[in-house]
This record gives sequence, C-alpha cells and structure tokens, in this order.
Amino acid sequence: MEAPRQKRPYEKPQGERRGLLLVYTGDGKGKSTAAFGLALRAFGRGLKVRVFQFIKHATARFGEHRAFALLGVPVEGLGDGFTWKSRDLEASARLAREGWARAKEALLSGAYDLVVLDEATYPLRYGWIPLEEFLEALRSRPAHVHVVVTGRGAPEALLDLADTVTEMRKVKHAFDQGVPAQRGIEH
Amino acid sequence: MEAPRQKRPYEKPQGERRGLLLVYTGDGKGKSTAAFGLALRAFGRGLKVRVFQFIKHATARFGEHRAFALLGVPVEGLGDGFTWKSRDLEASARLAREGWARAKEALLSGAYDLVVLDEATYPLRYGWIPLEEFLEALRSRPAHVHVVVTGRGAPEALLDLADTVTEMRKVKHAFDQGVPAQRGIEH
Repeated sequence: MEAPRQKRPYEKPQGERRGLLLVYTGDGKGKSTAAFGLALRAFGRGLKVRVFQFIKHATARFGEHRAFALLGVPVEGLGDGFTWKSRDLEASARLAREGWARAKEALLSGAYDLVVLDEATYPLRYGWIPLEEFLEALRSRPAHVHVVVTGRGAPEALLDLADTVTEMRKVKHAFDQGVPAQRGIEH
Repeated sequence: MEAPRQKRPYEKPQGERRGLLLVYTGDGKGKSTAAFGLALRAFGRGLKVRVFQFIKHATARFGEHRAFALLGVPVEGLGDGFTWKSRDLEASARLAREGWARAKEALLSGAYDLVVLDEATYPLRYGWIPLEEFLEALRSRPAHVHVVVTGRGAPEALLDLADTVTEMRKVKHAFDQGVPAQRGIEH
C-alpha cells in the first residue's frame, strides 16, 4: 500500500498569499472605476496602494483624485491628458516612457501591495512602452504585489500572463444617446 | 432666408445635469468594484452617495466597508450574506423586501445624488423584489439621482431602461486556476 504523499515544509498553504495580475479591458465603461474600487477595497484592508494613470495629466483633479487624496492614496498622472489627439507625438511618447520608468520602479520595489496601471494599454499599443519590457517587469515583480492593468485592446501576451481578465463589453452608453458627460460619473 | 431658431429660456443647456441609470452585469469580476469606484469618484466631486448591498450581511466588514466608513459614505448590507445557500428562503425573501423598502425610500427622497444598488439583480431574479415595482421606482426617482445597479443576469426590462450598460465578461479568473481568494482583492 502506498503511503500518502508526505507534505513538505515548503509546500504552500491553502490560503496562499499571492500577488495577482488583473486586466480590465474592452470598450465598455467601468474599467478604470473597477480598478479604483479595487484600490479602495485593498486600502480598506490595510494594503499599500499606488495608482499610475498613463493618459491623465499630472494636474488632473477628477473625482477619484480628490477622494484618493483624502485617503492618502498616491495617484500620479503620467500623460498629457489627450495623448491620441496630441500634436507632438514624440513628446507624448517621451512622457509615457518617463512615466513607465517611475511605475516600473514602484512595481519592482515591493513597497506597494497593489499597483494600478490605469490606461496602460494605450502606450503599449502605440509602441511607446516596449511590450516585452512591460511583461518582464510584471513577471519579475515581488510575489506579493498585486497589479491591475486597464485599457482597451490589451495585448494577447498580457492576457496570457494575467490571472484574472474581464472584458468590459459596451452594451449601451448614455453618450451615444446624446446625454452629455456627467460630472462625478464620467470624470 | 430662415432665421435661426431662437433659444427659449427654458431650453436645457448643453451641459444638462441628468441622473443616469448605469447597469454593470455579466459573469466577470469588476461589477461591484466598478460601482464602488464610481461612488468614490462621485464622492470626490461632492455628490451625496449611498450604497446598498442586497446580498452582503449588515455586519460585513470587507475592504470597501472600511474605506467608505473613513470617507463617511454610508454602506448598508441588506442581505444574509449567503442568500442562494440559505436554508430559510422565506426569511431571505423577507430581508430582501425590507431592504428594498429602505433603498427605495432613499432613491425617491432625492437626498442622495448617487445610489448604488449592489447585487440587486439577485433578489429581482428570485422574485423577492417585484421587477415592475423596482422599475417604477427607478422611473419616478428625482431627475438628478444617478443609480448604479450591479449583478449577473440583469433583466432585459432593466437594460432597456438604463442609460449605460456594461457587460463584464469573464475571460479568465484566478480562482478557476486554483488560486484562493486574496484578501483586499476579492473581499
């Protein structure tokens, strides 16, 4: 009779703590807000949270910025606020690369339990951040670090690496029916 | 030559303020967190926010509860925490109806700019809250009140009424790969 396989001391316990990679993609509303809600939840559990926004301007003061400021959660706008309309694409690209350097450092430092990379798919798609470098940073981050990446058109290789992926699919949007953006809801 | 149509004083301005009905449905992660992120954003814009959770128990103290408590945003669990496993369905149904009465009052009072009805699709699907009564409350709420409804399997009539609908589609979920729920991420 075969003896039950003995557990080794280094085997991971059931309730393993492990940093997850979550991706919210698709053309529907709720990608960034889901990331913010997750940041809120993590903060409420005492996790150290940091939010990087790859499109928002450093001076953006939307509702989420004001609320996170009250909680002491750092939110950093890395973009020029209107990247895809930018007239100086080289400047936008440089800004994205500089921002990515800061986000990467925070990711790899292990100083944060949750790092939000909001709208990071766009500089990836434009080739401003090399995809392989981005994925390598995710792979080599400390094991406890959760990461959320948001934005449309997430690259397949990012989805492959992710633990949890949700596609936010637009069924309908108020804006398409002529309703203007509402402060506190859209921004 | 036709004169340009004159604007009348009672014509609504471009930047019309209007309470939106948003629905986050589907089987993917991010429905409730998107609602919480929206609540955070609205709060940051000075809107009065109230959150009702139709499944969570009144004593639930997940990350979001702790964080919202810090901000002074009221979050009320209306359920017994495990409705679909409940052994006393009549008690669960009664609880849902009592909870709905409170949520409906808050909705119709106009005292809040944003009311979150988290996981409200479940009591609707079980028939614990009459769908027509639910829709009628949404239709007759004061014009400035934004509402977010979350949960799987949102009824068609609710989608029809909604201004913005996102289906959170599960592409993959860490849990299916055997990763246990992570505190601060899942709850």
